[in-house]
Amino acid sequence: MVHPACRRNPKMTEQLDLTLTRDLDISPALVWKAWTDPEQLLKWFTPDPWRTVECDIDLRPGGRFRTVMRSPEGQDFPNQGCYLEIVENRKLVWTNALEPGFRPALPPASGHCGHFLFTAVLSLEPLGSGTRYSVRLLHGDEAGRKEHEEMGFHDGWNKALDQLVARVRG
Amino acid sequence: MVHPACRRNPKMTEQLDLTLTRDLDISPALVWKAWTDPEQLLKWFTPDPWRTVECDIDLRPGGRFRTVMRSPEGQDFPNQGCYLEIVENRKLVWTNALEPGFRPALPPASGHCGHFLFTAVLSLEPLGSGTRYSVRLLHGDEAGRKEHEEMGFHDGWNKALDQLVARVRG
Repeated sequence: MVHPACRRNPKMTEQLDLTLTRDLDISPALVWKAWTDPEQLLKWFTPDPWRTVECDIDLRPGGRFRTVMRSPEGQDFPNQGCYLEIVENRKLVWTNALEPGFRPALPPASGHCGHFLFTAVLSLEPLGSGTRYSVRLLHGDEAGRKEHEEMGFHDGWNKALDQLVARVRG
Repeated sequence: MVHPACRRNPKMTEQLDLTLTRDLDISPALVWKAWTDPEQLLKWFTPDPWRTVECDIDLRPGGRFRTVMRSPEGQDFPNQGCYLEIVENRKLVWTNALEPGFRPALPPASGHCGHFLFTAVLSLEPLGSGTRYSVRLLHGDEAGRKEHEEMGFHDGWNKALDQLVARVRG
């Protein structure tokens, strides 16, 4: 029997990731606040004309991170997971592969669009008075990475980050 | 669209768990050591006549927890996951739903016996000079709990714990 993880090698796993790195002229503390205060997150998290209409943040390992995104047509898309690692102003890790309390998520329903599993690693590195902002999304398989990419990861996360910066500068 | 997690309620999720609680006459620190020192773990982790023949422990959130169990017939069964929460001498949480580094595990291959996903929560509560030892295994669905139970969870974990206590008393 070959354990599934033995089918991996580092080059393979890199191909399962989506990444974004940008240098921002706002401080890590301000970026951190935008990501961890639900009231702030509602205002930038979803690229306009989509909206984030609900947000729960329980900022501890195993704590709930839940959002509801609303399409321009008024359809709601809930997302739920839990936090894994929290280093204030520096690093935030969460996943939708575990529910709050660390319970494994239900297996994705077949054909259920957008229910791929991923872990997100957000890193904030001080850069003068600004921030080197890095996101790495880890997927379990190629299909998940591809689906996430085709949903518009690059445009979506870049546009949301523009909104975050604009709000903070406000 | 109903989010998968919205199909849950607390009573339902309790039915997805397997639990074991026993009072031991050895200290939490000795139990902790047996669980976190690979050399010690090899000696008690698998109910005789099975053996644990390999063990990697990287004791930090996201760190590797890997074992290889060998059947009496000589067949090897590797298991891999990562640690989620570590409170020395008190609480240890790990899962096989995430690989080391928090990457979501590959979806279970269909018909791949024993690759159900679970999170294990080990709690050690001081009880005089002894320990109240509690394990809760959280599954994502009923099929996972059932498969784990039918593999012999109750007998297996009790027998392994007897071995742990005997080794520590040694």
